[in-house]
Order: sequence, then C-alpha cells, then structure tokens
Amino acid sequence: MSEALSELRQELGAMVRDDQATRAAHRADAWVMAEWAALEGRSGPLPLAVLEPRSSEDVARAMRACRALGLPLVTRGGGSGVCGAVQAGADHVVLSTRGLAGLVRLEAEDALAVFRAGTMGIDAEERVRQDGFTIGHWPQSVALSTVGGWVATRAAGQFSTGYGSIEDVLLALEVVLPDGAILRTRETPRAAAGPDLRQLFLGSEGTLGIVTEVSFSLRALPEASRGQALHFASFEAGLGALRRLLRPGWRPPVVRLYDPRESRRGFRDFVPRDRALLLLLHEGPAAAVDVELAAVEALCRESGGVPTDPAAVSQWLAHRNQVPSFRSFLEQGVVVDTIEVAATWSRLPVLYDDVVRSLGEVPGLLAATAHASHAYRSGANLYFSFAVKPADPSSIPAVYAECWRRTMEATLAAGGGIAHHHGIGRVRRGWLAQELGAVGAALLWKLKDAVDPDGLLNPGNLLPPRAAEP
Amino acid sequence: MSEALSELRQELGAMVRDDQATRAAHRADAWVMAEWAALEGRSGPLPLAVLEPRSSEDVARAMRACRALGLPLVTRGGGSGVCGAVQAGADHVVLSTRGLAGLVRLEAEDALAVFRAGTMGIDAEERVRQDGFTIGHWPQSVALSTVGGWVATRAAGQFSTGYGSIEDVLLALEVVLPDGAILRTRETPRAAAGPDLRQLFLGSEGTLGIVTEVSFSLRALPEASRGQALHFASFEAGLGALRRLLRPGWRPPVVRLYDPRESRRGFRDFVPRDRALLLLLHEGPAAAVDVELAAVEALCRESGGVPTDPAAVSQWLAHRNQVPSFRSFLEQGVVVDTIEVAATWSRLPVLYDDVVRSLGEVPGLLAATAHASHAYRSGANLYFSFAVKPADPSSIPAVYAECWRRTMEATLAAGGGIAHHHGIGRVRRGWLAQELGAVGAALLWKLKDAVDPDGLLNPGNLLPPRAAEP
Repeated sequence: MSEALSELRQELGAMVRDDQATRAAHRADAWVMAEWAALEGRSGPLPLAVLEPRSSEDVARAMRACRALGLPLVTRGGGSGVCGAVQAGADHVVLSTRGLAGLVRLEAEDALAVFRAGTMGIDAEERVRQDGFTIGHWPQSVALSTVGGWVATRAAGQFSTGYGSIEDVLLALEVVLPDGAILRTRETPRAAAGPDLRQLFLGSEGTLGIVTEVSFSLRALPEASRGQALHFASFEAGLGALRRLLRPGWRPPVVRLYDPRESRRGFRDFVPRDRALLLLLHEGPAAAVDVELAAVEALCRESGGVPTDPAAVSQWLAHRNQVPSFRSFLEQGVVVDTIEVAATWSRLPVLYDDVVRSLGEVPGLLAATAHASHAYRSGANLYFSFAVKPADPSSIPAVYAECWRRTMEATLAAGGGIAHHHGIGRVRRGWLAQELGAVGAALLWKLKDAVDPDGLLNPGNLLPPRAAEP
Repeated sequence: MSEALSELRQELGAMVRDDQATRAAHRADAWVMAEWAALEGRSGPLPLAVLEPRSSEDVARAMRACRALGLPLVTRGGGSGVCGAVQAGADHVVLSTRGLAGLVRLEAEDALAVFRAGTMGIDAEERVRQDGFTIGHWPQSVALSTVGGWVATRAAGQFSTGYGSIEDVLLALEVVLPDGAILRTRETPRAAAGPDLRQLFLGSEGTLGIVTEVSFSLRALPEASRGQALHFASFEAGLGALRRLLRPGWRPPVVRLYDPRESRRGFRDFVPRDRALLLLLHEGPAAAVDVELAAVEALCRESGGVPTDPAAVSQWLAHRNQVPSFRSFLEQGVVVDTIEVAATWSRLPVLYDDVVRSLGEVPGLLAATAHASHAYRSGANLYFSFAVKPADPSSIPAVYAECWRRTMEATLAAGGGIAHHHGIGRVRRGWLAQELGAVGAALLWKLKDAVDPDGLLNPGNLLPPRAAEP
C-alpha cells in the first residue's frame, strides 16, 4: 500500500497525514465495540492515511484522488457516533472534516447562518447566540459532534419536540459528490422543484457524499424558558399524558418521560418510588409560555399526573451533556449501551414491555430501562439503556450483540422503527432491510450505485448486505 | 399502435379504457396552455389508452405491462395541476388514480389516517373531521386534487405557516416503482435509518413512481379559530412585519399579505387605497389563540400596521377555493396565470419589484400583482398573478411564455427559488437546471436513470433537458 500512499501524497500534498498517532485517532468513532477492541488491543490495522482538507475544493480534490487510486474513503467529523459508522480498514483513507471549521456568514434579517461542516456543534450554537439566535438543535453530543455530522447521521436534539430535528433546521447544504462535483442547494425557505436533494444526504452516513457546508434557518433566543415536572403511576400512564398534551397542539421544546427505574436512578429527590417522571421545558414569548405551562399541567392532572419540583428540570439541564464513559464500564467487565427506536403511540407500551422483558432474559443483565425524549403528533421515540456483566468478560461482544438482536427484533415485531436518531452504522446494518422492506433496501442500493458507482464512500456502512435481485 | 393496445388489453383487461371521451378527458391537466390548445382545437392526438386500476396490485400490473410493451406511462390524479405535468402524447398511456379512492384506516390514538392515493383532498379532510381531526393541508385545489397528487407535486396548503406543507403532514407512503415492486415506507413518526425514501417521491411529478397510498399524521381540530386583519403602508412594510411577527415563534396557520393592488381588488371594504392588507388566522387552544392574537397586533403596530375589520378574513375564507377559470379569460383574448416563487426575507422586496417591473414591459399587460401566503423563519413565498391581452390573440402562447421567462429570470437573478408549491411540470422545466445548478440537475438525472432506467414514467416532464456529461 505504500505506493498508493505515495501517489496520494503526490496528488494531495500536505493534506495527507500518515503518522501513527493521527491514523490511530481517526480509525473509529465512539461505538462501544470500538472501545472494546481498543481495550483488548484488537483494533486491527490502521487506515492508510488521514486527509485534512481546509476547503471544499480540497475535499473535491481528495475525492477525485481517492477515486483515481481506487481508495475507499471514510469521512469523519467529531467521531462521536455510537453505531460504528466510522470503522476504517487497512486500505481505507479517512477524511477528517475538522479543518473545515467556522462561520461562513450569518444573515440576521434572514435568520440564517452558514457553517463549514467540521464546525463543532457547540461552537456553532455559541456563535449564533452572540447575535440573539439559536440553532435549536442540541444533541447530547453537542460538544463532541460537528454540524456536518448532524446532517450525515440525521440527528435529533433534546429540543426536537418543539423545534424539530436536523431536517427541520436545515436550510441548505454544500456536498462534495463521489465524482468530485460540488453540489450547492438553493438557499430558499421551501421549494417544489423536484425531489428535495438535501434529503439524499441527511442520514447518508458518509456513503453518498461529503457534507462541506451547512446552512441553518435560525430561531430567535426565547424570551422565556420555564421548566415543569410531574410524575405518573406508570410509564404507560405517562405516555398517555404525553400523547394527550401534544394533541391540542402544545409543543414544549423538551419533553422527557422516564420509566420508574430511570426516574428513581436520576431524580430520587423529585419522584416517589415506582412513579414515572415527566420533565418539560417550555420556551417562547413569556405570555405563551405561561399559557402552555398551565394548560399542560391541567391535561397532565387529568391523566393522574402529580406536579413535583421543577428543580428536576434544572438538574437535568445541568447534567444533560454528560456522555457515559463506555470504557470505564468495560474496564469493570460491564458493557453498557443505548438503543433508540420509535413507534406510533399505540405500539409504544407493548414495545417497551417486550424489549425490557427480552433483555431481562440475557444472563448477567444489570439494568434495562428507557425514557421517551422526542414526541410527535403520532408517536414518540424510546431510548433504551442496558448494562450487562457477563460471567466471562471475553463474551462481552457476543452478549452485546445479543442485547441488540433482542431489542431490534422486539421493536420490529411491535411495528416500531429500529433507529430514531443515532443512525444505522454497522451495529444496526443487519436489520435495515427489515426496516425498509426488501423493496426499500433495493431502492437504497439503486441510489447508492447511481451516486457512488465505484462504492468508494464508507464501504460496509449503512447499506444492508446486497440481496439477490428479484 | 393498435397492436400495443390489444396487447395492453390482453394483459390488463377491463382496466383499459380506449373510448375517445375518456382519452380526451385524461390527456392533460389544468395548465392554461392546455386550455388554450383545446380552445384552438389544437390539443393534438389523444393518448393510446387510459388505465383505471382499482388496487395497488392493479397499478403494479399496469406498470409491468407498460414496461414490457415499452409504453410511456403518465399518472393523473385530479388533473388540477397548473404546470403541464400531465401532457400525454399519442403513444402514451395515462393511468388515472381516481379508482384508488377512500379511507384505508384511521387510528385515532395514533392520530393517523391512511387514504388511497386517488381520494379527493376534500373527501379525505371531511372524513378525518368526523373523528375530530384535520389533515391541516388545504390547497386552493382541495376539491379538485387528490391526496396522491399532493405528494407527487410537493404541495403546500393555505395553513402551511402553522401546520407545514405536505412533507410535514405525511407519515408514510405506498408507491409502485417502475419495476413493478411496491414500496411501503414504515409508519413511524421519525427515523434515522438512511436517507428518507419518501422524499424521492415528494415532488417527483410522476417521473419516479406511482403513489398508491398516503398516510397522514393528523392534528386535532382546533378549539378556537380567530381572524385578524391589518394594513401597512406598503408591501415591503408588510413583509417586514411578517418577518418580525414570526421571529419570536408565533405561528398563525394562515398569513396572507397582499400587495396594494390585490388588497384593493379583493378587499376594497377593508383597506384604504395604496395600503397592503395582512390577513391572519390563529388556531389552537383558545387561551393560546388570544395570547398570539394580542402579541401579533402589538408587533404589527410597531411596524406601522393599522388594525381593520377581521371580517376580511371571513370574506377570504368564504371565497378561498374559487379557482380562476382560465378558459373564460382566454375566450376574451386574455391570458392569466399565477407563478409562485420563494426567497429569503432580504431578497423578497427586490424580487417583487423586479418581477412586477419586468412584467410591466410586456405589451398588453393588464395586471401584475402578488401576495405572500406561506411564511417561514427565513423567508416567504411570493404568489404572482398576471393578465395580458395581446393585440393579436394568436400571440397568446408567445406572450405567455414571455411572462414566464421574465418572472423566472428576475426570480433567479434576485436569488429566489423558481417554484414554491405548484411544481415544475413543463412550464418551468427550462429553468430547473438553474434552480438546482448543473450539479444538482445531473444528480437528479442519476436518480431518474437509477429508478426508471427505461424512462417509462412521464417522459418530458420535470427533468431538465439532459446536459452533456462533464
């Protein structure tokens, strides 16, 4: 491979990094199985090189060079993904977007801001706040993820119930396509001009193009922000309340309903044993916030909700960006992970029960819990957490796979969707054909083959194993 | 062609209609140039046949038969499109979705309803109202268009500022693909499971598949609904007010700002001469509506807005579904049409002025006016209307094309988007490559060739003329 490397260097010069530390730091994302492999000293060979472009034109040059040399290209942003979308092999080149950082422009009258794709989420948010705006997208990984990564993974943030997910805050995109061409979508608030081409890249996870710029449609920072907390007799009762409070049109940006175990674990001072805690954050003009808060309290009381100290919301806000350290658990022989799925309201209680019951059959299970953190008119997500300590620590990968298999199968059996906002990566890839159906999976492959005919971009990620043609 | 017809009949039996009246009734949509051709007796040859499937499986059979016989297939719903997306030639087969009508199921707990694609919009809306819901999508054509047509054209309704456009009310789709396979997307409220495959068909205008079922995420019928009307010193002042009232997060479902000429023409009793009228409709829980109405009045007064009788809103509501009769104008030698475009706030005043000025240079122009009827955080649409009476009536097609050319070019020059919600069809096709850029246009062609490799579906519509490969 050193010949390929030397050719790459000839084409791309200083953009190419091949020192061992850089290659090791960019080989993977934050998937717990990558952590496990690293801990076991089994991460495998390093990628051939890391590319550090400084401009969209650099990315286009990198794309053309890799294509000419037949080198698979894996794009990496903040590396905070937890599904294994970044797993570079020995013959792979990793392109880091982190050198594409910073604000391109902010247009206050148009409430829009354009950032280079490698800008860290928190930096973008802090920048627009200087001008009185918010992007309204705040994933737990906001300090670890890039704005380009938000698009590529189809992310959702903690304020999504009121403000929408990444697809709702995105105005326009710049993307380098596998043929090296640079696509810039038009900066208009809405169009009926053929299929929305941005959608091809939202959730593409590095398989269809490389996002180089992201334009957001901003919101004004809210005049008021008020927390509210209530608890319910059960998780199912809380889900019913959530459904009923959304029905008339109330849209608190944050709604978070914890099952009794998570309520107890995280909010002991605010909730009696065996009750499900609902946290809400209302934002907007002060008068509107007051009306919404009062109406939501009345609706929740009708569902048996009991108000509790809204300091629970402040506590959540203070700790909401703490990302669990997979590694510290692994060092104790415990594997933990989270799995977010989604379903319509009527399916959620069964889905919740079935997943928790099925995970309960896994030997060594320490905990299987969930909360709902993103709600819609027709349903919500469930965000499961599990922890297992197998008798034999070397069985961790197998036990981990078993927990995923059980959660995915119970979700599909209950009519749910297998991925709410973390994406597919490698951990869910085996179930994507069931999520999309055989026809949908074949269609996705047609799009992939049309846009990336050489299969250059992130091979082995996202797309399900190819089915035999019908 | 009678051999093809006989083979089609052999494959599809009673689904095939080839009487002259049926073929004549399905050859076109409501594009004014189709009306003109009909009036002049120059509609050209009739399509080969009309197919009337009764089920999704019928549609799949029809697709396979047309593919096997190499017959181009044009899908037609209500036929209310105004851009010439349906223009069937002599060797074309038209598939009418109107036999695919009615509710499949309504799930009240999940606030969702599934309709067959040929259901008329008004019928779908009336059906969900029986259960206390609204689809929240009310295009002017609601009584003339089908729910499948809403998806295929990427429609927006009159309540879009608060309730979103078709992409925001759509939950899931069933689509027959060009290879005859039936795609059913998953009925989940949100997913991060690869690119959103529904988006390929939203705005595809019959070129990528045939929508056979549409699942909507519903809203509860609002508790309260209150109109509000104010007038401003100019259209530009009104646009500024609109921008400022949306900024803090207010979202009246209906906002309609008319330029002074349209204000005077439509609402003489409510607005002084040379003022721009803004109509708003607030909906939701009564307490929220009251707060929003008061806040919007205060914000509008800051922009020089003067309240006027909200009966103006009632008047609009009473007449809002009146669709202009192109034909009656044509019979008087006058051609009228509407052109909706969109842009960010800062571009709208220039765009408006430039289009009106440019249309003013067309000999025989009787009127060129506009209103804004769909607003977003970062901008709004402009809905132009024009009427021209050329000295020589036979020049109507040329004068009409000239009005479109001027509007499209002024829009692009001002940085706007050429199509807000009517779609591309044939009338805008020549400008789509500029809208998408050369890279975007080439990408759209890649998608088309991947999904419909034989070019079977609605040839000549939507996609721009093929560019030479780079």
